[in-house]
Amino acid sequence: MEIITSSKNEKIKNITALLSSKKERDKQGLFVIEGLRIFQDTLKTAPGFIRDIYVSESFLKEHPEEDILFENNGSIRIITVKDSVFNSISQTVTPQGVLCTVEKPEHTLEEILGGTKFLILENIQDPGNLGTMLRTAEAAGVSGIIMSRDCADIYNPKVIRSTMGSVFRMPFVYVQDFTEALRRIKGHGITVYAAYLHGGEAVSGVQFDKKCAIMIGNEGNGLTDGAVAEADKRVFIPMAGQIESLNAAVAAAILMFHGIA
Amino acid sequence: MEIITSSKNEKIKNITALLSSKKERDKQGLFVIEGLRIFQDTLKTAPGFIRDIYVSESFLKEHPEEDILFENNGSIRIITVKDSVFNSISQTVTPQGVLCTVEKPEHTLEEILGGTKFLILENIQDPGNLGTMLRTAEAAGVSGIIMSRDCADIYNPKVIRSTMGSVFRMPFVYVQDFTEALRRIKGHGITVYAAYLHGGEAVSGVQFDKKCAIMIGNEGNGLTDGAVAEADKRVFIPMAGQIESLNAAVAAAILMFHGIA
Repeated sequence: MEIITSSKNEKIKNITALLSSKKERDKQGLFVIEGLRIFQDTLKTAPGFIRDIYVSESFLKEHPEEDILFENNGSIRIITVKDSVFNSISQTVTPQGVLCTVEKPEHTLEEILGGTKFLILENIQDPGNLGTMLRTAEAAGVSGIIMSRDCADIYNPKVIRSTMGSVFRMPFVYVQDFTEALRRIKGHGITVYAAYLHGGEAVSGVQFDKKCAIMIGNEGNGLTDGAVAEADKRVFIPMAGQIESLNAAVAAAILMFHGIA
Repeated sequence: MEIITSSKNEKIKNITALLSSKKERDKQGLFVIEGLRIFQDTLKTAPGFIRDIYVSESFLKEHPEEDILFENNGSIRIITVKDSVFNSISQTVTPQGVLCTVEKPEHTLEEILGGTKFLILENIQDPGNLGTMLRTAEAAGVSGIIMSRDCADIYNPKVIRSTMGSVFRMPFVYVQDFTEALRRIKGHGITVYAAYLHGGEAVSGVQFDKKCAIMIGNEGNGLTDGAVAEADKRVFIPMAGQIESLNAAVAAAILMFHGIA
């Protein structure tokens, strides 16, 4: 059995590269998940996407290799790593001792537009917000997420952590030309509702169409004028107090649970 | 004019202590806010709470002292700090060059219970979640927040950042005895709705009472059995997909905007 004992090992260096660099993730078509919960989730939901499993020696002592192999039918490579080396690549304070390289799930806009309920995101920057939005979208019954290319990278380890496994269950796509994508969405008979602070209808009074998309903009600036101009309707969330805006993931949640769930 | 040129200066060391230690914040009754936006917000909403203002030399060049004094009527001390020293205590990637020590706003449970709409939090651990909940609560029209003593510290710099200024406008209190506090809340004729994953009524069917409180539990474990037992009613948010729970701040937002706003 192969045991990696040095953090200078090529495989370990590659994991560090996949964790830190979007460019590297794009080039290899791979990303990294870490932790027992998401590992088990992935084995259940998307075993075909797992490439290599890295376990610490301590993890292997507590989880015999047969157990892991049993669940993954033996086709996936399991690589053992010295605890200190595992800890050096771990992104968590108390490493659980298991991480995997996983192939990126790929979806096209046309595939996604076969659904009926959508979330459209323009330039969402905070990885925690993006992950929370994926998780909330799954809970609200969204069929797919369409993102402008300047949104944060879903495969960023911080996003992956906050999706709680939704990354394999919620179809999503980054589009190169956002305006053109909005037009194609509308071309499918989908009504686009823009979350907008300055005017439009209060969300409580809006009866969302059966085929609909909720569109949310950047954390600091909201949607661009161009995106708002393409929307069919504008909705806002009435706010008390001196609050100027809600957290983007919170606003998305309120709109999705009103209009979609 | 006093200029601090060393990070070994006692005042600078004290700011570091206030930023990193809850114990120190409790002892001194002070906390730290950083950034132009929250500084201006505080000058407007709660100028009486500001103790000292620390500005970097660069900040002072762009914002003449008269401007700052004019707004704060001259009663607050302004201390200039060398840029490199300011950057060493800053909690942000691109420091704006202004931070303040501020007195903690203090509220009692009785004061808070004069309102009609409440958020009750048990053992919320994530600073970002807690800050987002304060901000969302203000937007939803909540009159006050009651927290178990094991919730994260609101004066933690990460919480302060995500409250976006709500910390001065939203009354809150940490209670020593959570069960006793719940009984006092109910004694005021306030109906307590527990967010509960396992049973109760779906939120969309619930007509929340006029005087009501929404109670949210810990991120990983939800509410304790003891807290649920004290609640008048249990509500849940129906979820699609394979999601086991929502992010705590998202769940709180959906319930507050359904039951309170």
